[in-house]
Formats: sequence, C-alpha cells, structure tokens
Amino acid sequence: MDAIADHSIVIASDHAGFELKEMLKQELEALGFAVNDLGTHGGESVDYPDYADALARAVAAGEAGRGVLLCGTGIGASIAANRHAGVRAALCHDAESASVCRRHNDANVLVLGGRVTAPEIARECLRIFLDTPFEGGRHARRVAKLA
Amino acid sequence: MDAIADHSIVIASDHAGFELKEMLKQELEALGFAVNDLGTHGGESVDYPDYADALARAVAAGEAGRGVLLCGTGIGASIAANRHAGVRAALCHDAESASVCRRHNDANVLVLGGRVTAPEIARECLRIFLDTPFEGGRHARRVAKLA
Repeated sequence: MDAIADHSIVIASDHAGFELKEMLKQELEALGFAVNDLGTHGGESVDYPDYADALARAVAAGEAGRGVLLCGTGIGASIAANRHAGVRAALCHDAESASVCRRHNDANVLVLGGRVTAPEIARECLRIFLDTPFEGGRHARRVAKLA
Repeated sequence: MDAIADHSIVIASDHAGFELKEMLKQELEALGFAVNDLGTHGGESVDYPDYADALARAVAAGEAGRGVLLCGTGIGASIAANRHAGVRAALCHDAESASVCRRHNDANVLVLGGRVTAPEIARECLRIFLDTPFEGGRHARRVAKLA
C-alpha cells in the first residue's frame, strides 16, 4: 500500500456508531488524512449492512487506502465488510488487537463498536491501526489465503 | 434453526486457539452436544484460514447448527469465516457481545481469541451464544442484507 493511498481514509457507521464516527473523523482530519465520510449523518435508525457494504466497496476498489467502520458492537459491520474480497476488516477492542491486526492480518479496515469501546481507547486503536506495518513472512502466506 | 441442528456443533482453531478449543469442546460435550472437531489437533503452527474455511463450509452446508472458531485474536478467523455466504461469524470478548450477536445478528459462528480471552469468560460466551435466541423484527431485515 503506497503512502498516498494511505492518506485517504473512508469512514462509515450506522446510528449506533455515529457519535464515535464523528469523533474519529475529527481525529483523522487533525492527523492530516483526507476523510471520505459515507455516513450515516445523524442518529436516526439505519441498517448497518448498507454502510458497511458501501465502505467495503470503496476499499476494495482502491478509492481509499484504509477504512474505519462502526456499528453498535462492531460485529454486524465486520460480517458485512468481510463479505467483500480484498477487504480485511478487524474488530478491535484495545491497543493489542489494533496492533496484531496490522502486523499479522494486514487489516485494511478498522472496526469498532460505538456502544462498547470508550472514546480514548478508540482513538488509541485508530492511531495504532494507522501506524503499524504488516510483518509479512509466514503471515503473508496466511493473508493470501483470505483472498 | 431447528433444535436437532442446534445440537450438532462444529469446532475448529489454529495452533494459537488449540488449548481453548480443547476446553470448549469438553464443555460442549458436557452440555450434550455432538461435537465435530475439525482440528487443529496440536500446538504445531498452522494457517488459520485453512481451519476457518473448513468450519465455514460445514456451517454453510448445514452439516452443523452452529460453529465455534478460534485463533490467536479471533480476527483472522473472523475475516476468513465471513467470506462464506450464510456464515455470520461473531468475534466476542464478553457476555454482552455473545448475547447481542445472537439477538441482533443471528450469528451462527462464535469466534474467540485463544490469546486474549480467559477460559472462564470463553465458557460464559459459549453458554450465552448457545442459549440466546434471535430477536427478529428490524434485525431480520438487516440480517437478510448480510446474505
């Protein structure tokens, strides 16, 4: 993944992830990323697969280097996003999972749960997700099997 | 999902989930489930997608009512399993996520991380995953979009 693509990020959530999405969007913009916000844009109830599919299509098409995706627990969003070839969506809850998903799984979508992960932990996951390189080696063989 | 299918469970892990798999397999057998163990059968390093794909194929084919899948963090296993249509694999870390993934996502595969989730919490997630019904309603519309 080249450096330019890495600086373009797509973000999406359902209503349950909306507040955390707004906070992480501000964080990304403060870090200098160009953020494409696919919604949702308010607290009205929507269907998480619609937003997860839109984000996954954007990442799979190379329109963004990385994606950040949220729903209430992150579980529904993960299921939907990982239906798409080329998308490796990692549901993270802490710094360790955010690090391992990059080092071992070459994750290109960070998934967080707006109802389960506190804002400061979410920010920490985001920074680690953006900064941690893939280790390759035996992990590359495994990632190739996720195609 | 009918009651007979629910009493047939398939389980699989890579080396990092092996010990937790053995423990959960004993728990399932003690609860009266027929457990089909797809491996791995020891601590030797293997590739998590091989085991996740085998389990997902079994669940998608209706060979088991539910699946239990493990790797180190659960992230790689979730990505691989959710590549398969009809599989809704939920990475859980606590009682709440194990409950919500059934109530809202109708998850048919419980994913746990052998290196991140303690045995007693894993057992609690398993019991909740097995006992909690899907709520339907607006959640059924969303689950239909995961097809």
